[in-house]
Amino acid sequence: MTRFAQGLNAAGVLSAQRIAASLDGIESSVRDAMIYATEGGKGLRAFLVLESARLHGIGPGDAAPAAAAIEAMHAYSLVHDDLPCMDDDDLRRGRATVHRKWDEPTAVLAGDALQTLAFELVVTAGCTDAARLQLVTTLAQASGVRGMVGGQALDIAAETASPPLSLDQIITLQAGKTGALIEWAATVGPRMDEADSGALGHYARALGLAFQIADDILDIEGDAATVGKAVGKDASAGKATFVSLLGLEGAKKRARTLVDDACDVLSPYGTEAETLREAAQFVIARKS
Amino acid sequence: MTRFAQGLNAAGVLSAQRIAASLDGIESSVRDAMIYATEGGKGLRAFLVLESARLHGIGPGDAAPAAAAIEAMHAYSLVHDDLPCMDDDDLRRGRATVHRKWDEPTAVLAGDALQTLAFELVVTAGCTDAARLQLVTTLAQASGVRGMVGGQALDIAAETASPPLSLDQIITLQAGKTGALIEWAATVGPRMDEADSGALGHYARALGLAFQIADDILDIEGDAATVGKAVGKDASAGKATFVSLLGLEGAKKRARTLVDDACDVLSPYGTEAETLREAAQFVIARKS
Repeated sequence: MTRFAQGLNAAGVLSAQRIAASLDGIESSVRDAMIYATEGGKGLRAFLVLESARLHGIGPGDAAPAAAAIEAMHAYSLVHDDLPCMDDDDLRRGRATVHRKWDEPTAVLAGDALQTLAFELVVTAGCTDAARLQLVTTLAQASGVRGMVGGQALDIAAETASPPLSLDQIITLQAGKTGALIEWAATVGPRMDEADSGALGHYARALGLAFQIADDILDIEGDAATVGKAVGKDASAGKATFVSLLGLEGAKKRARTLVDDACDVLSPYGTEAETLREAAQFVIARKS
Repeated sequence: MTRFAQGLNAAGVLSAQRIAASLDGIESSVRDAMIYATEGGKGLRAFLVLESARLHGIGPGDAAPAAAAIEAMHAYSLVHDDLPCMDDDDLRRGRATVHRKWDEPTAVLAGDALQTLAFELVVTAGCTDAARLQLVTTLAQASGVRGMVGGQALDIAAETASPPLSLDQIITLQAGKTGALIEWAATVGPRMDEADSGALGHYARALGLAFQIADDILDIEGDAATVGKAVGKDASAGKATFVSLLGLEGAKKRARTLVDDACDVLSPYGTEAETLREAAQFVIARKS
């Protein structure tokens, strides 16, 4: 395994364990569903937290609460996104979605409580009080109606949009729906360090956009068993995607350019940032 | 109007305005639904924040972010609680519920974003960084799977519980579902002041329980037009309530005793706490 693959795996496991430990002693299906929803993810966001922290001299012990927080936040968004009234998905990370394994009320409440847990965890990051407050504020901004939820709202509106969304509109949608949490994760290090987050922010925006383009490509080229969720839905629904707007080859080329850009912008961190460069390569090479 | 009624009205209006102002410049149905969901409430939780702050020498300008935060958190819980897969209610605060006025995806996202907004607001309270972090931590604890959501999960399980819940179980359920946010609101003052929150915590627990008993009484004695939401649902569903367990007169007596207790425990604050005592009286006298 590459350093990147090892780090990704470790970050995902660490975050899931941290979340499970924080729910110790509770007996309820909501608690079980919360843990289930945080298992089996790629751990990309947790990895970005730990790597950006490492680049700023912050160890995994101090950064782990922020890594677990962003994975809890991400998991909540997936649980609610999969609900029958939203995307109505049966499969997530290769397993039954929460509302299929339990029921809809459990999925609503587990998602709600995962968001709460994200804030409960992030305030325990190992940094100054001022930096902790910055983490809370920026996490809320990235997750709320100006960030992730705003992107989800645009995504729902896009399903019935006529004409379909333009490229600029899709980029805005993506910057909210998936980009905001990825950018938050990749800038945790400088935020905890109370340092400039410009380079990592730039890296994350390019990475996030490449990630979504790769998702649209997987929706065309992947099979559900490997991807771990339903595929072909966007295309069959006639939704505008990066592939429908740029063509398959055009989308791949755009993703490639974004990844090159993401790698270049990390030059201030030198070879120390090699693992983050590997992460950017992974984002467009992944099969799931 | 009594001092209490004036204060309640002002706190509710102040919080709704603050929430609306924080969403300025966004154009989406989710944003409109968020504002709609925070309008027309009693403002009890915001009032408890402002009054507990006043008792600790903290002005409304410094406490207002915490007041708006708790009203946003409360509104999110109502929007999700009203969803078809949860209580499936059409009426809330005398108006159509969010999923009836808009649709289910908008209600899910508006609730999600209201929770996020609560955390975004609370970190701007006018106190030390350490006190702000305490507000975030305790708000998360009060709202999550050990607090409000935990109580909601018990409430759902109670619908099919056989035998019906005991009095102790109902009290535990209520302490989570409605008690936790009420207690948080009433202890904001000492938390911002980094002072002992014992007396106000005791007051709030008695108040919260009396509030829920009064709700169960309203479910029997009230009419939907006055109460502003459906009534008689619990009784017709055969759910255990304070009224089914204590009888109508027993429930009224218990609520009365709790209110007396809540008033007594405020003695350290002397006559300054008169408005909070009026609030306790209101809780069992209210018609909606």
